[in-house]
Amino acid sequence: MRAVDLIIKKKQGLALSCEEIHFLIQGYLSGAIPDYQMSSLLMAICFQGLNETEQLALTLEMLKSGEEVDLSSIKGICVDKHSTGGVGDKTTLIVAPIVASCGLKMAKMSGRGLGHTGGTIDKLEAIPGFKVDVSPENFLKQVSEIGLAVVGQTANIAPADKKLYALRDVTGTIEAVGLIASSVMSKKLASGASHILLDVKVGNGAFMKTVEEARTLAQAMVKIGNRAHRHTVALLTNMDQPLGFAVGNALEVIEAMETLRGRGPQDLTKLCYELAAELLLMTNMVVTKEEGLKQVEHAITSQAALDSFRQMIKYQQGDTKVLEDYSLLAKSKYIFEVKARKDGYISQVKALAIGQAAMLLGAGRAKKDDVIAMGVGVKAFGKVGDYVHQGDVLATIHANEEKIDEVFTMVLEAFVISPHQVLAKSIILEIVS
Amino acid sequence: MRAVDLIIKKKQGLALSCEEIHFLIQGYLSGAIPDYQMSSLLMAICFQGLNETEQLALTLEMLKSGEEVDLSSIKGICVDKHSTGGVGDKTTLIVAPIVASCGLKMAKMSGRGLGHTGGTIDKLEAIPGFKVDVSPENFLKQVSEIGLAVVGQTANIAPADKKLYALRDVTGTIEAVGLIASSVMSKKLASGASHILLDVKVGNGAFMKTVEEARTLAQAMVKIGNRAHRHTVALLTNMDQPLGFAVGNALEVIEAMETLRGRGPQDLTKLCYELAAELLLMTNMVVTKEEGLKQVEHAITSQAALDSFRQMIKYQQGDTKVLEDYSLLAKSKYIFEVKARKDGYISQVKALAIGQAAMLLGAGRAKKDDVIAMGVGVKAFGKVGDYVHQGDVLATIHANEEKIDEVFTMVLEAFVISPHQVLAKSIILEIVS
Repeated sequence: MRAVDLIIKKKQGLALSCEEIHFLIQGYLSGAIPDYQMSSLLMAICFQGLNETEQLALTLEMLKSGEEVDLSSIKGICVDKHSTGGVGDKTTLIVAPIVASCGLKMAKMSGRGLGHTGGTIDKLEAIPGFKVDVSPENFLKQVSEIGLAVVGQTANIAPADKKLYALRDVTGTIEAVGLIASSVMSKKLASGASHILLDVKVGNGAFMKTVEEARTLAQAMVKIGNRAHRHTVALLTNMDQPLGFAVGNALEVIEAMETLRGRGPQDLTKLCYELAAELLLMTNMVVTKEEGLKQVEHAITSQAALDSFRQMIKYQQGDTKVLEDYSLLAKSKYIFEVKARKDGYISQVKALAIGQAAMLLGAGRAKKDDVIAMGVGVKAFGKVGDYVHQGDVLATIHANEEKIDEVFTMVLEAFVISPHQVLAKSIILEIVS
Repeated sequence: MRAVDLIIKKKQGLALSCEEIHFLIQGYLSGAIPDYQMSSLLMAICFQGLNETEQLALTLEMLKSGEEVDLSSIKGICVDKHSTGGVGDKTTLIVAPIVASCGLKMAKMSGRGLGHTGGTIDKLEAIPGFKVDVSPENFLKQVSEIGLAVVGQTANIAPADKKLYALRDVTGTIEAVGLIASSVMSKKLASGASHILLDVKVGNGAFMKTVEEARTLAQAMVKIGNRAHRHTVALLTNMDQPLGFAVGNALEVIEAMETLRGRGPQDLTKLCYELAAELLLMTNMVVTKEEGLKQVEHAITSQAALDSFRQMIKYQQGDTKVLEDYSLLAKSKYIFEVKARKDGYISQVKALAIGQAAMLLGAGRAKKDDVIAMGVGVKAFGKVGDYVHQGDVLATIHANEEKIDEVFTMVLEAFVISPHQVLAKSIILEIVS
């Protein structure tokens, strides 16, 4: 078998066999197949695609290149929830405690953020003392005892995916459904959960710009998951505007705690309830979605979900006093208000621009080694469909510097105000199962 | 400018600007752009193509990466003739002396062969003493004095093309019209001739399998040539069966000399006459093709063409006695006859198989460093359309080994014999100008 022949085969639109995919991935990992052959193959895949069998084979090959988390010692149903990444997405901080308080187990390994979308474990580190580096033993023990843990990667998960992703990043081959689906699912399968809920973001602040693209990706991932014997469901959710108000680590943790208290922004609350109810439904903890939503509601009003979150902070050595006193979290030096320049309906809140503004303030990493400023960020209060008067506060900018002209303009221009009434899209667009 | 952005631009089907192509080729040559980015760009080009302006820009960029041969000191019209490569293609050995004897100048730098198609200078080296390494000064002096020279590359021609071609070879990105056209034309423009005649081979023994593909390539090359102010014409010619009878270095030199004596195989003779007449027409040495063909006929019957060939051998230190005594050329140890197993019409002579058989005998190089056996090869006498009886000799195999079972089978099976009459295609299929 020669790599060049397999590249030509794919270029011609033919399907690669499992053996051929094995040869390619193993050869790439070992160095026998050089970057320049892999990148030309990846580009051919961008044009010719991968069929379902190829996607599954690629996923399993990348999965097998590394370790798999063994959750068999945990009693109960282990679930995982994955978001494709959006601006202001703090749902894991809310959904995990909710479903844990309802009896599910969520053993979550999470990555750090890169670019305009923050990582969950970066956000958790905004809590003083909170440790995300947890030994495998303590990770399993914590999930067994309190039903949830959110930690950094302790295992060597899908190294082939890591190597391929780095190559795709510099060779213009990120955007290919089969490659994205296999990459996500190789890591999800490795995480060991039996039930996987995918939150596929759609819109200008997300990787997938249209519902059609997002649906195709969601269907691909759901098929891979189910063919690998994990019950997998995907929600397509709107990311035309930031999720909730807060974008930035400490700001998002506060918003998550508020949502766990039943006082969160409407869109974020709705999405978290739907995700949690879907997890309860998938795992047969409830028989209907409505029943699931009722259980979620109860987890919030009874403060059971908030208590689960408190327990996680305690187990991971964070300061639980933050739950009662948000001022213990990092704060920015300055807060600036961004006000509407005219009356009208908000027709757009450009999520990507808000995310990039937060990154420029120091809330995210442009490069791997950048240090995150925990207290900075943006709170975008204005939502699509809202009517605002000139002078109303659309957003606040939480900065550590006084001179923020560029960021100010970005945030101001992220809000498009129109004389005509605009209806906001529903936060949940579709369910793919 | 970032390479990855340009890759994505091409992936999306957009055209690259001249500045962008300059950036890419210069960056690739300098090492600033790594192989893995270039190969993914090349694969994107295989799918999205290059428009005429991009092709011209790429050609000129590769041309400028190296030296250009300066033929300005030569009086008269300098022409070049290029074949895209076929089995048994010894036309340069015949056409160059013909047009030189008619007053044109052919200063030809030629490559060595790789794979199943032999290189012209390899063939010339079958003549005892013949030198293909000629200094630039002597090269120009020879062309000035006798009108022709065929030498190895003395100049550093289009190194960017060389580097790109090596990468394309191992990344499945050879087959893309824009890349092939730019590669060929960058070298042709560097050779310094004002008039360029391209012989684009079509058929199973050629790179282009269909007339449509070949026409597209020919049109692309002619456009590049003309836009770069060289008068460029292309002939599409049939390569479904080997050209002439002989495939193998000394065998082909003998056949070329026979053709220069007016005793060559019909298809080869016809093609050489057409190519030579076209060159005379392109350069306004004649007013009509018919007039050109008459001049060519005269060059043969008067032995003026044969004399030109003799002079070239003499100038390049070869033994001119070979012209009168073919036995001075290398011979194979054994000759085997391949006979028809049944009566019928020859419907196919698979050129590719004959070429591969000759290569297996040692007539060509599979790897760069392979040493060529000058005397070996195949003479394929049977031609498409011929009626043969069982036992008629279809071909002779000229080998240095006694055990040639594999080659024998290849040659035998290259001839397909059918009960139905088959008409041979014309050797000249189309003219593109």
